[in-house]
Amino acid sequence: DTVDCRSSNKIVRLPGLVDVHVHLREPGATHKEDWDSGTATALAGGFTMVGAMPNTSPAIMDQATFELAKQLSSSKARCDFGIFIGATFTNTTTAGNFANEAMGMKMYLEETFAPLPLKDDINVWRDHIMNWPDNTTPICVHADGRNLAAILLLGWMYNKQMHVCHVSHKEEIDIIRDAKKRGMRLSCEVSPHHLTLCDKDIPRIGAGQSEVRPKLGTEEDMKALWDNIDYIDMIATDHAPHTYEEKCSAKPPPGFPGLETSLPLMLTAVHQGKITLEELVKKMHTNPIQIFNLPEQPDTYIEVDMDQEWVIPKKPLYSRCGWTPFEGLKVKGKVVKVVLRGQTAFIDGKILVEKGYGMNLRSKEYLAEVERLKEQKTKTQLSFVGEKS
Amino acid sequence: DTVDCRSSNKIVRLPGLVDVHVHLREPGATHKEDWDSGTATALAGGFTMVGAMPNTSPAIMDQATFELAKQLSSSKARCDFGIFIGATFTNTTTAGNFANEAMGMKMYLEETFAPLPLKDDINVWRDHIMNWPDNTTPICVHADGRNLAAILLLGWMYNKQMHVCHVSHKEEIDIIRDAKKRGMRLSCEVSPHHLTLCDKDIPRIGAGQSEVRPKLGTEEDMKALWDNIDYIDMIATDHAPHTYEEKCSAKPPPGFPGLETSLPLMLTAVHQGKITLEELVKKMHTNPIQIFNLPEQPDTYIEVDMDQEWVIPKKPLYSRCGWTPFEGLKVKGKVVKVVLRGQTAFIDGKILVEKGYGMNLRSKEYLAEVERLKEQKTKTQLSFVGEKS
Ligand SMILES: [Zn+2]
Ligand SMILES: [Zn+2]
Ligand SMILES: [Zn+2]
Ligand SMILES: [Zn+2]
Ligand SMILES: [Zn+2]
Ligand SMILES: [Zn+2]
Ligand SMILES: [Zn+2]
Ligand SMILES: [Zn+2]
Repeated sequence: DTVDCRSSNKIVRLPGLVDVHVHLREPGATHKEDWDSGTATALAGGFTMVGAMPNTSPAIMDQATFELAKQLSSSKARCDFGIFIGATFTNTTTAGNFANEAMGMKMYLEETFAPLPLKDDINVWRDHIMNWPDNTTPICVHADGRNLAAILLLGWMYNKQMHVCHVSHKEEIDIIRDAKKRGMRLSCEVSPHHLTLCDKDIPRIGAGQSEVRPKLGTEEDMKALWDNIDYIDMIATDHAPHTYEEKCSAKPPPGFPGLETSLPLMLTAVHQGKITLEELVKKMHTNPIQIFNLPEQPDTYIEVDMDQEWVIPKKPLYSRCGWTPFEGLKVKGKVVKVVLRGQTAFIDGKILVEKGYGMNLRSKEYLAEVERLKEQKTKTQLSFVGEKS
Repeated sequence: DTVDCRSSNKIVRLPGLVDVHVHLREPGATHKEDWDSGTATALAGGFTMVGAMPNTSPAIMDQATFELAKQLSSSKARCDFGIFIGATFTNTTTAGNFANEAMGMKMYLEETFAPLPLKDDINVWRDHIMNWPDNTTPICVHADGRNLAAILLLGWMYNKQMHVCHVSHKEEIDIIRDAKKRGMRLSCEVSPHHLTLCDKDIPRIGAGQSEVRPKLGTEEDMKALWDNIDYIDMIATDHAPHTYEEKCSAKPPPGFPGLETSLPLMLTAVHQGKITLEELVKKMHTNPIQIFNLPEQPDTYIEVDMDQEWVIPKKPLYSRCGWTPFEGLKVKGKVVKVVLRGQTAFIDGKILVEKGYGMNLRSKEYLAEVERLKEQKTKTQLSFVGEKS
């Protein structure tokens, strides 16, 4: 880590952050977010790679919709990205065709803000798990309580790489911890909101605004997550923007924005001694890259002002949703600069890369780009060595 | 096997049959069955050992109720028996006290004819599984679909010996087979009614009369059970008597009697070539004894007329329920004699042992009785050898 000095604050250089769980709302609900605003939001939060969830409208679940998502993202994204394929009742035999090109497969086993719930049909769950090709990308599950236990059994039985999204409550982390101890091939993520908010925060945030899936837990749930933080592989925002008007409506949709507030909230936890900076980098960069088998981004890093204290404003800089449940919270630590594949992509609140600069992490073009940047670096180093000698 | 000749029919001697899953209805519903009538029914069916389920009224779930069951059974049973302890919301820390003295623990994860449903609280399930002492008696589950998958995960995580009651449908046997293939410590039972009846039989039996949990499956389910018969460890009747009046009422309680019809139905399957007699003996004697760690009963056997053809009558010989869903079915094979611990307990339709002759298989008295019978046998053999020489 490079430690710089700037106005007496400690500036730390970290690798580009990875968020494997974001909802970019395009296609279908671009008034909440789209590939442009969502990836700008990511950069503003220090993220250089995101994984886009498939519960859009239409949902990403077959050739036509996967191609649509690839096309929209390639033309509009400002940071690098992967695209998830959604598991449905109808694609048990075809979802696996996307196992290498997708970020992973997403299975919704609970009712949530999704056109993709698989309800309680264990046959369909089993078919999906059995049919997903071995040694490709992870199977990610939104599953609570007994549904989590059930899907983990299937993952174990068919020896698939399982990833549990947004673990939120004591009952789930207890199961995940003990399954890991028993030797299961299993990873999980936690959201900053489940680590920092609980049911006691609902009056402050507002009842409708507080709606999120999984629901905010109790203080005991939050404590269980921190107590077992060593068993949690990564932080993922579950960035799920809805407009403030929608959140104030009679039927508020569940979900919080999270990309711009994730790192500041987690750096504040570092300052509070709840987690070390080293562990945080593992959970926001190293582990997601390793577990989702993502390429390292060459010449990519972020600069963070560790000591800057600020109050989270109501409106995010770039997200279209226009609100945050963290409004008014004092945090310590701020992203000041993001360099993505050699280009300054964000500095002092401004996005400097164009729409379409972001690349699909699973594409052949991405591998070629990584190769090109490596060669360029080698040449620079060789010429530098040449100058020296 | 001893093969005798009697009126040109083949008489076969088999070991005493074991049924690990019966409902004897006492305490609480002795108009349906009690320890006397239920164990007489068992003997009439060729069973010399039964395991009594805890969903009586009161349920068997603590010291007082376990003692009550022990007392009722000891004074009234005519065949040997074990008693299950029921898992409840309130006995997660105390059920384990009965781990050695009970036949096993029974967990009801579904709504059924039971005061003991554990509903969908995975925390309570987990506490029960974790707290059940290792290397004692099995944990038996009534669980369908995803609940089965969930409880099997917990059993695997905490390395407990799990037993799945009355597997009935394709979805459950698929999971059990694949979990066994993957190396899980797991056994299961099937009932003769799920092997021989399906939804096409409902019109014949009557809608209310056909109510049973798990429900009768489709022909495909029945085929899946037979296709995977090698993965099914035992036949258990799930003898669940209700009176014919109750079965004809507006709210018919689920359950079939099964003790008197189990062996004839299974012997008919032997004649049909669906299973060998050797395999049947494994599933009705050897495996239950081994899996439930039951004592072998000395000087105990049954004699079966393999070739006797008969039509199952409406009224069982001994069960108080007074009906059977198998009424009118032609079967081939009949129990003619039962010898239990040296005494003829049943012959030609008559019970010859008194109430209270049956013993608790998990009691110290039982071990002493086994010892006594062994010594007696050794003496007889020695004196016989003496005479010879
Ligand atoms: Zn989710
Ligand atoms: Zn939960
Ligand atoms: Zn999500
Ligand atoms: Zn790295
Ligand atoms: Zn049952
Ligand atoms: Zn079923
Ligand atoms: Zn039963
Ligand atoms: Zn034996």
